[in-house]
Amino acid sequence: MITPDSLLRFFLETRKHTEAICQPLEIEDYVVQPVAEVSPPKWHLGHSTWFFEEFILKPHITGYKVFDNDFSFVFNSYYESVGEHVMRSDRGNLSRPSVEKVYEYRTYVTKAINDVMEEKQDNHLYDLIEMGIHHEKQHQELLLTDIKYILGNNPLLPPYSKNLKEHQEETHDQEWIPIAEGIYGIGHDSGNFSYDNELGRHKVYLNACEISNKLVTNQEFIEFIDGKGYQNFELWHAEGWDWVNKNDIKAPLYWHKIKGEWFHYTLNGLQKITPNTPITHISYFEAFALAQWKGCRLPTEFEWETAQQYFTWGQRWEWTESAYLPYPNYKKTAGALGEYNGKFMVNQKVLRGGSVATPIKHTRPTYRNFFPTHTRWQYNGIRLAR
Amino acid sequence: MITPDSLLRFFLETRKHTEAICQPLEIEDYVVQPVAEVSPPKWHLGHSTWFFEEFILKPHITGYKVFDNDFSFVFNSYYESVGEHVMRSDRGNLSRPSVEKVYEYRTYVTKAINDVMEEKQDNHLYDLIEMGIHHEKQHQELLLTDIKYILGNNPLLPPYSKNLKEHQEETHDQEWIPIAEGIYGIGHDSGNFSYDNELGRHKVYLNACEISNKLVTNQEFIEFIDGKGYQNFELWHAEGWDWVNKNDIKAPLYWHKIKGEWFHYTLNGLQKITPNTPITHISYFEAFALAQWKGCRLPTEFEWETAQQYFTWGQRWEWTESAYLPYPNYKKTAGALGEYNGKFMVNQKVLRGGSVATPIKHTRPTYRNFFPTHTRWQYNGIRLAR
Amino acid sequence: MITPDSLLRFFLETRKHTEAICQPLEIEDYVVQPVAEVSPPKWHLGHSTWFFEEFILKPHITGYKVFDNDFSFVFNSYYESVGEHVMRSDRGNLSRPSVEKVYEYRTYVTKAINDVMEEKQDNHLYDLIEMGIHHEKQHQELLLTDIKYILGNNPLLPPYSKNLKEHQEETHDQEWIPIAEGIYGIGHDSGNFSYDNELGRHKVYLNACEISNKLVTNQEFIEFIDGKGYQNFELWHAEGWDWVNKNDIKAPLYWHKIKGEWFHYTLNGLQKITPNTPITHISYFEAFALAQWKGCRLPTEFEWETAQQYFTWGQRWEWTESAYLPYPNYKKTAGALGEYNGKFMVNQKVLRGGSVATPIKHTRPTYRNFFPTHTRWQYNGIRLAR
Amino acid sequence: MITPDSLLRFFLETRKHTEAICQPLEIEDYVVQPVAEVSPPKWHLGHSTWFFEEFILKPHITGYKVFDNDFSFVFNSYYESVGEHVMRSDRGNLSRPSVEKVYEYRTYVTKAINDVMEEKQDNHLYDLIEMGIHHEKQHQELLLTDIKYILGNNPLLPPYSKNLKEHQEETHDQEWIPIAEGIYGIGHDSGNFSYDNELGRHKVYLNACEISNKLVTNQEFIEFIDGKGYQNFELWHAEGWDWVNKNDIKAPLYWHKIKGEWFHYTLNGLQKITPNTPITHISYFEAFALAQWKGCRLPTEFEWETAQQYFTWGQRWEWTESAYLPYPNYKKTAGALGEYNGKFMVNQKVLRGGSVATPIKHTRPTYRNFFPTHTRWQYNGIRLAR
Repeated sequence: MITPDSLLRFFLETRKHTEAICQPLEIEDYVVQPVAEVSPPKWHLGHSTWFFEEFILKPHITGYKVFDNDFSFVFNSYYESVGEHVMRSDRGNLSRPSVEKVYEYRTYVTKAINDVMEEKQDNHLYDLIEMGIHHEKQHQELLLTDIKYILGNNPLLPPYSKNLKEHQEETHDQEWIPIAEGIYGIGHDSGNFSYDNELGRHKVYLNACEISNKLVTNQEFIEFIDGKGYQNFELWHAEGWDWVNKNDIKAPLYWHKIKGEWFHYTLNGLQKITPNTPITHISYFEAFALAQWKGCRLPTEFEWETAQQYFTWGQRWEWTESAYLPYPNYKKTAGALGEYNGKFMVNQKVLRGGSVATPIKHTRPTYRNFFPTHTRWQYNGIRLAR
Repeated sequence: MITPDSLLRFFLETRKHTEAICQPLEIEDYVVQPVAEVSPPKWHLGHSTWFFEEFILKPHITGYKVFDNDFSFVFNSYYESVGEHVMRSDRGNLSRPSVEKVYEYRTYVTKAINDVMEEKQDNHLYDLIEMGIHHEKQHQELLLTDIKYILGNNPLLPPYSKNLKEHQEETHDQEWIPIAEGIYGIGHDSGNFSYDNELGRHKVYLNACEISNKLVTNQEFIEFIDGKGYQNFELWHAEGWDWVNKNDIKAPLYWHKIKGEWFHYTLNGLQKITPNTPITHISYFEAFALAQWKGCRLPTEFEWETAQQYFTWGQRWEWTESAYLPYPNYKKTAGALGEYNGKFMVNQKVLRGGSVATPIKHTRPTYRNFFPTHTRWQYNGIRLAR
Repeated sequence: MITPDSLLRFFLETRKHTEAICQPLEIEDYVVQPVAEVSPPKWHLGHSTWFFEEFILKPHITGYKVFDNDFSFVFNSYYESVGEHVMRSDRGNLSRPSVEKVYEYRTYVTKAINDVMEEKQDNHLYDLIEMGIHHEKQHQELLLTDIKYILGNNPLLPPYSKNLKEHQEETHDQEWIPIAEGIYGIGHDSGNFSYDNELGRHKVYLNACEISNKLVTNQEFIEFIDGKGYQNFELWHAEGWDWVNKNDIKAPLYWHKIKGEWFHYTLNGLQKITPNTPITHISYFEAFALAQWKGCRLPTEFEWETAQQYFTWGQRWEWTESAYLPYPNYKKTAGALGEYNGKFMVNQKVLRGGSVATPIKHTRPTYRNFFPTHTRWQYNGIRLAR
Repeated sequence: MITPDSLLRFFLETRKHTEAICQPLEIEDYVVQPVAEVSPPKWHLGHSTWFFEEFILKPHITGYKVFDNDFSFVFNSYYESVGEHVMRSDRGNLSRPSVEKVYEYRTYVTKAINDVMEEKQDNHLYDLIEMGIHHEKQHQELLLTDIKYILGNNPLLPPYSKNLKEHQEETHDQEWIPIAEGIYGIGHDSGNFSYDNELGRHKVYLNACEISNKLVTNQEFIEFIDGKGYQNFELWHAEGWDWVNKNDIKAPLYWHKIKGEWFHYTLNGLQKITPNTPITHISYFEAFALAQWKGCRLPTEFEWETAQQYFTWGQRWEWTESAYLPYPNYKKTAGALGEYNGKFMVNQKVLRGGSVATPIKHTRPTYRNFFPTHTRWQYNGIRLAR
């Protein structure tokens, strides 16, 4: 359990860090939404603030004065319990509230939570605040990947910052970690924070298998491309094959072939592909096809969780073969916060690990991320099993 | 292992039975395709015939003369290895080949297979023929459900036949069958026929739970409707909630409210709903929502396979909570037949059991059926677990 | 004015001719609807019959017994005044009523009208019947072009009949007919039948111009294709250019390039293109682009009507530059029949002439046909002006 | 003919005025594009600048240094002759170039044109510059109506400015101006500026009719609404009726019914409807239906041009019944500027007049504006004829 003092510090650091992520942006960058799943940075700033206002300040603090009554409509993401909201695909149509106004909103709510924590001692409130912090950290990751999408799809390809390093080589040799057949424990059970979807430590039975200690590299993916992997239907799911052909997919997201050489947009601008760094920005369909092509498969999330101690991870969210499903005895949180995880448990795949965009202290071995199978704008990667 | 003699008998019976299903149809009924996933009956007749011609006669019988070279283009379903094919959604645009011509095609191929079996002794060929028979049996089920869709969406609501009985009461009391925590064996291992997706008998670890010995009834579903189940977002997956609202879903497929009373289209024509028979024609989304509303959940396919001996089944394909995924050590069949199962193992749910439309000898306790989550035109049903 | 006797003969001949058009069809051909604007032949048979029942028998004949109450829902095309109807794009989803039943319906209604005409002397009724005959003649033309679409888009390319000749050479030399600047009279004014959209003989002022006495030929269109006409945006309207690119249009409808040579589907089956016959099955967009490419333009409908006596016409409906608009003092017919023309007077182009598919006695110099600009399945042609 | 001095002054005033229109905006307002036909203000600023650079500076000024090579891709609207461009619907996805950079671009190009005019005496160049000024004035109008759309569809409904007055009463009595049957001259023929689509003064023959000296008011439109005009298919074109039902149209754009009273968003913020001011923000479909409901019709553009001297106009662009077609002997301007008008002459309606958003000196009695029939975001209005 976290102490009230360190919770407050954690809260303030998190709020500040969100704003630091936006520091290199022009005001215009805060506003646009090139595709439905990429939200405007301004919206992330407002939404992570509204979460504290809606679930903590409004219901629990007597006399709290809402910053602006219209903001609930604008910054609610999908909580049906909380009333109507702007359609997700329309977020990029809103020029107002202005960025300046959204920062005022942040300051107002940060101060209000700060005041509450200094005045009230209430463990339930602390739990909600901790939840709000983790929620904001999740949005920090989306914020960065959404910024990358906004800039990386602009014809001017403007760099975001020279400091962030997205592509780091794994220098160790590739080895296969064996998992022996048998019963293993899965799921979260410490007293620390976790989401409801990780809970319910339980047993699973695994068959013997091996899992790679190294992520698939750009070089290996280029071999797949050169080996006509995108043209060979045998490697693909039927739905993946349709996706490839309908969208004319020929390379990972952000890749450009210029005069016979592969480049990709990075947060530092357009750069040559580095062969030995882990591949990223590929969909589950592509991860699966690459694995097929290698004569391997993707690990299940249970294999991954069992073996994770034997490899370094944290650069890429790693696609698993597991569908996103409830654990045995899954109980969703009561009230609106119960909409957080459970209602997405269909037609998505689990990703495990964490990425260069994941805020520190935000992931853990039992963390279950999830995305639809065509998703590419996160720092997704591939680890093979066999 | 089936003997050559009984295989031949099995083959001839199956071919005859497919035609018997079509016997009550007008020629016009053979042609239409009201939605993309419902194929014209004529197409099923031709496709199940083409399967024998393409995978058995053409590659294995020297001197075999193809009935009509254009038919491969018309009757291939999705086998990419075998060349181009009519887009699935365009099958209902083809008036030719005529029904009469398709029956000639059937007779021609049935005779050719019959001749082969009388002349050749070849176990590999027998295996392929057995595969073709099971393939045709699968299409018999689709044929009947597609016919129901074609007639049930016609404004004249014509009956198909007076003989088929779709709705049979389960007269026993509802009880909860306990499953004890522990390791269970899953998957097919006898010498009899099975598909590749059932193979690889393996262990799974189950938590203690209970599973109902009785299917959910129409009466229970009406209570869900009357209890505003379709209006309560808390019961639904986010994707299910979108589906309900976008398609304005208010009842199972084929249900009509006439002067305050529920009727449904059946193969015998429009009839009053019988409260005590098992609900059917509901999507996975609806099955899940009904379970939530009852404070229960759907069983996993492993729980179902473990408990199935304790309940009578076979009236409804039963939605499970399990995503359709490969078993450990799954190996897809070599060649074009490998396209049969593996490439659909993403974003679909497993159904277990078998329905009133399932041909005899076609299902078994390890059989894994699968459909996308919004699918309703099969005889899907609901069994609860907790 | 037509006499009652000849009206009856005209009626019976028309009814018989509709059925004669369908005589070469298989039952399956009556049912399909490959695209929304092509109706199943069965529907034309029923709809032209329903028109007599709905507008003549039901309102005017005491004691008339409707053949089947559900048919109004099935066979109404778009008359909003007459109640609900099957959506246009769903006509091909209806296997019932069967073709046999539709022919019974025809016989029943033909007899009823025949009886009425023998028993009643009522000029208003005669007018309505004449309207119904002309309506059926319009559908005869659509019936034939819809049949061509159904067969011509079938991968087996079955011929319809060996007798119908769609492509007849114009053997005279090409000349330019001059029109002198001045005032001309436009519109219908004889006592004979016409539609409301032709009425109101009125003056228009024309500038001096010239109009070709000959239709554009296949050969000229091939030169346009070879001259990269489909690739040169300067020749196209912006909307036409989008249409070409979105639909990947490279030749007229029904054209196939086989081993370097142009073929087209005709009602006699697949045939080599004959260079000297008039081009057909092109959209307004293509007609406009071809004219641009020739340094000419399309005539207006007023120029056409003024000059029509100097050329033979009747093989092709000829695209004009005129938008389909009401004439001065246009009055739409009262009641449901007023929905016949007026409500389509927006975003369509006028075609003048008549085609090989037009029934005799059905067109005249003042007849105004109209279609949306992308339409190609009619026997459209091109006449140039400058 | 305009003198070089006054042309320069005209140029500089126009450039300044465009920027003045944007003065009340927040930076965020410059960026968004809520629907495809509404461009971001930033784009208008850049595009009207690019026009001078592309068509004047680049081809005609030796040694001119392009401001930024990527801007041609970003700010080309649809000129196919000039190379590739951002898809129209993607303009709102571009956060860069920033607003500041776009203003730098404007200053750079304004200075370059200014320098050219001071150094060079070249009538052809003057003509092009005059064309560029008129082009920019057209965009000034779009800029204002696009800003209104952006702010008026924001849930906060922010006002744009308190100064602009969109709704001015016509205080004179309604009268019908008679037009006598006969020949009239139509089209532009003075030496002053006009677009190519107005040229070719020519004769048309008009029938006797009457045209209102007053625009249709909000009050009259409310009577249409209260009289169930939106529910009566008889008043609508078939395409208009589909549009109304598909988009659930129940009132003009920007209208809101709040507690039983009609309000509308104006550039001054949300206000009560004023009954006696001219209706605006209605589509051609609605204008036509209102006219039908009144037992009248819309005037043709020829009737309008003939009678315009007898009424005050300039508050609303007025829908006419005329399709946008070329005048006799229409010649499109050579080169890329020929793409300006001619390629849109299909499936659009002519509007005559000019609106509160039209810059002074920008419209004239022969000016032909044109929009697709469903368009509502311009200040469209209704004048009746009969």
